[in-house]
Amino acid sequence: MNRRMIFHILGKILLVEAALMLPSMAVGLIYGEKATLSFILPMGLLCLIGFLLTAKKPQNKDIYERDGFFIVASAWVLMSLFGALPFYFSGSFNSFIDCFFEVVSGFTTTGSSILSDIEALPYCILFWRSFTHWVGGMGVLVFVMAILPLSEERSMYLMRAEAPGPIVGKLVPKMKSTARRLYGIYIVLTVICVIFLLAGGMPLFDSLCHAFGTAGTGGFSIKNNGIAFYDSAYIEMVLAVFMLIFGINFNLYYLILLGNIKEVIKSEELRWYLGIVGVSTLAVSLNIMKTFKGQSFRYAFFQVSSIITTTGFATTDFNVNFPEFSKSILVLLMFIGACAGSTGGGFKVSRLIILIKSFKKEIRKLLHPRSVTVIKLEGKPINSTLSHNTLAYFMMYIIIMIVSVIAISVDNFDFTTNSTAVISCFNNIGPGLGVVGPMGNFGGFSWFSKLILSFNMLFGRLEILPMLVLFNPMAWKKKS
Amino acid sequence: MNRRMIFHILGKILLVEAALMLPSMAVGLIYGEKATLSFILPMGLLCLIGFLLTAKKPQNKDIYERDGFFIVASAWVLMSLFGALPFYFSGSFNSFIDCFFEVVSGFTTTGSSILSDIEALPYCILFWRSFTHWVGGMGVLVFVMAILPLSEERSMYLMRAEAPGPIVGKLVPKMKSTARRLYGIYIVLTVICVIFLLAGGMPLFDSLCHAFGTAGTGGFSIKNNGIAFYDSAYIEMVLAVFMLIFGINFNLYYLILLGNIKEVIKSEELRWYLGIVGVSTLAVSLNIMKTFKGQSFRYAFFQVSSIITTTGFATTDFNVNFPEFSKSILVLLMFIGACAGSTGGGFKVSRLIILIKSFKKEIRKLLHPRSVTVIKLEGKPINSTLSHNTLAYFMMYIIIMIVSVIAISVDNFDFTTNSTAVISCFNNIGPGLGVVGPMGNFGGFSWFSKLILSFNMLFGRLEILPMLVLFNPMAWKKKS
Repeated sequence: MNRRMIFHILGKILLVEAALMLPSMAVGLIYGEKATLSFILPMGLLCLIGFLLTAKKPQNKDIYERDGFFIVASAWVLMSLFGALPFYFSGSFNSFIDCFFEVVSGFTTTGSSILSDIEALPYCILFWRSFTHWVGGMGVLVFVMAILPLSEERSMYLMRAEAPGPIVGKLVPKMKSTARRLYGIYIVLTVICVIFLLAGGMPLFDSLCHAFGTAGTGGFSIKNNGIAFYDSAYIEMVLAVFMLIFGINFNLYYLILLGNIKEVIKSEELRWYLGIVGVSTLAVSLNIMKTFKGQSFRYAFFQVSSIITTTGFATTDFNVNFPEFSKSILVLLMFIGACAGSTGGGFKVSRLIILIKSFKKEIRKLLHPRSVTVIKLEGKPINSTLSHNTLAYFMMYIIIMIVSVIAISVDNFDFTTNSTAVISCFNNIGPGLGVVGPMGNFGGFSWFSKLILSFNMLFGRLEILPMLVLFNPMAWKKKS
Repeated sequence: MNRRMIFHILGKILLVEAALMLPSMAVGLIYGEKATLSFILPMGLLCLIGFLLTAKKPQNKDIYERDGFFIVASAWVLMSLFGALPFYFSGSFNSFIDCFFEVVSGFTTTGSSILSDIEALPYCILFWRSFTHWVGGMGVLVFVMAILPLSEERSMYLMRAEAPGPIVGKLVPKMKSTARRLYGIYIVLTVICVIFLLAGGMPLFDSLCHAFGTAGTGGFSIKNNGIAFYDSAYIEMVLAVFMLIFGINFNLYYLILLGNIKEVIKSEELRWYLGIVGVSTLAVSLNIMKTFKGQSFRYAFFQVSSIITTTGFATTDFNVNFPEFSKSILVLLMFIGACAGSTGGGFKVSRLIILIKSFKKEIRKLLHPRSVTVIKLEGKPINSTLSHNTLAYFMMYIIIMIVSVIAISVDNFDFTTNSTAVISCFNNIGPGLGVVGPMGNFGGFSWFSKLILSFNMLFGRLEILPMLVLFNPMAWKKKS
């Protein structure tokens, strides 16, 4: 590995993180809060270490796929360690591990919280908490690539490691412009979301925070009762629709900008995604009819949208108020997740399509051993490597979750709590069932379980491989 | 498909089933029970249909893999439908679906019961219930092959469809002698188990029934409290050791008979299997120390052996008395299951080894893209087809379970109950957690969920593919 270059890029990322803390400080100054001070030391540290790491320009600028994975994984861990410091210094958290859990939950756009009284936090801390969603949603490396001078090829390895979902077809060759374009769309959509929320009478600060949570498909709310606080069907529909919008592959928005609507409508992943949302909403609506009467659709659509996009906002305590069938559907949606290339987490709809098509192919091969079946996605044939990788990814995905459930079971919570806590964290949702239901929190877990769950979030957000590289000493060798 | 030949073989199987009811009738006669009569009509029906189907000898005796799958799957469904009749006529069950569930649970060696008061059953019905475990453990088709005149090649397709686990290396060419040998070992080991139980003071009837449950790794007990009824450390250790013995690949016993001990000790699957048992027993022992004190090892070893072999006997209500960590380990063991080629169910240790090695291979390929890694099992290289099939099997395995959990959640039991009920049935264990814990039962589920769970057991026992062929109308066509 090219250590010089890795340190150099990591240094730049730390400097960027220091800059990202400025808006939160500004919020603190506006509200005249003492907690504003808790950003000063972290920013100083980030700048110091950042400057030290970037002081010497590396001669050899070559990085490869493995380095890309390593950089992305270590960048996310470092950003979380430093990002937890303002929480720590604010005095609103019990321990550093709580701060780490909370900020990892923020950056990975999970939205699981260890806090029981969110409304007690100072505004600047609430802002930082929600802002991490927005930063993590599109990705930190994508941001760095958008603003830093890196060659195309090098950027590609970084982007590939951070971008969610399997990549079908060749990557857009111009990485830097792609990164800028993605961020452009991201910012515009976020602003539109804020405007819609303001129009519904939500205060500006609340609108910003919830728009960050929506855009990143994160799910941190600034109210103890989540979105139920506002008790407004308009706000819920705005959020539900915007969550769905941010769960769609951003490339489709670029195609819309190019006027290529036909291609968008033809998108197989989009059709499946909307189909799953439609069927699930219908099933949940019918199932909760007894309790929610005329409001069934409102609650069903919001919760389905919130869960499949892996946001995790809640308008009702579905752990208590939904029948088991609806809860099971929500757990299934947690597994599925949003579209590839969106800000959403989970297994991704496109991977699900590949799995289901592989399933069919296996059966067909059994019935007609000599037939040749080619799996296609978006009209393009999927080579056997990609379909094999999807199966392998599925295997790692399930195995890591099973091991994690066993690990956190030492805290002696019930099986429903343990399994949905892991499913929820790994897929970057937020709430689970049982103790970690939408009105519960993760505060009761031991530091050990919080650490396991934090790494579940990172494994889920970075889609396993980068984290495995980080934890594999074999990968750190200078030469492969 | 060769329908004539399929009907012919199915006819033979029904005749065999009629004969298999004779021992239970004998038990009824010995105890002078009225319930003996409930076997008469089923046996008459089996004989009638059996003779009709076998009356005309088919000219064309060719069958292929697809036919093999079809025969095995339909044979298991038919045997279950007819096998449920004595239960139904005995009047001890509430409905036919309850009888079907119970007998499927018997044949598939699951051991889940819908009964709350087992001890109220007549002896002949109890005997038939346990005897189905013994029949299903080694397989019905294997039995038919051992006694009926079928050509080698035809037998192979049947055996491959029914034998559990992936088959590494080439199949023994002499199918008929293999089938006879397997049944020979099976009978001898069962007899030894009975002798050991008798030596512990267990009555003959109880010893027979529990030996059937152990040999088939089934788990039906004839006591409401299961094995806890006897409260004997000796009996528990005998059962624990015999469960482990029946969870080992039977080919290894044949190797022992041939005096090839070296090969047995070298067996990779055996080492993993015993290793997993050892580590799990240790972990559970330590974890339950607080409650069970000096008896920790006794309860831990019995429960670990019972669950990994997919038997499902219980000596304590682990759902209530074990901490969550131990319960999670037991759920993990449910997934893993016993060795390929044993009477145990589950995913199989050998498949787990292939998965873990594939996991490692994926990481190595990532770190050293140009390296070539060959996965080996038992010292033999595994071709990419087998490793791909294992991944595909894993995918189907998980997807079917997830869909089943959602389906049975309409009954509104909690998530722990629903998920462990499916895991337990699909892997042919018996008890789960929550309502379906070792001292609970499946009686509270609706007929719909009972049907879903019954088919989960069949899917699990026949390892998915045969059942998929049965449910796929495309497969029924005359020509492929």
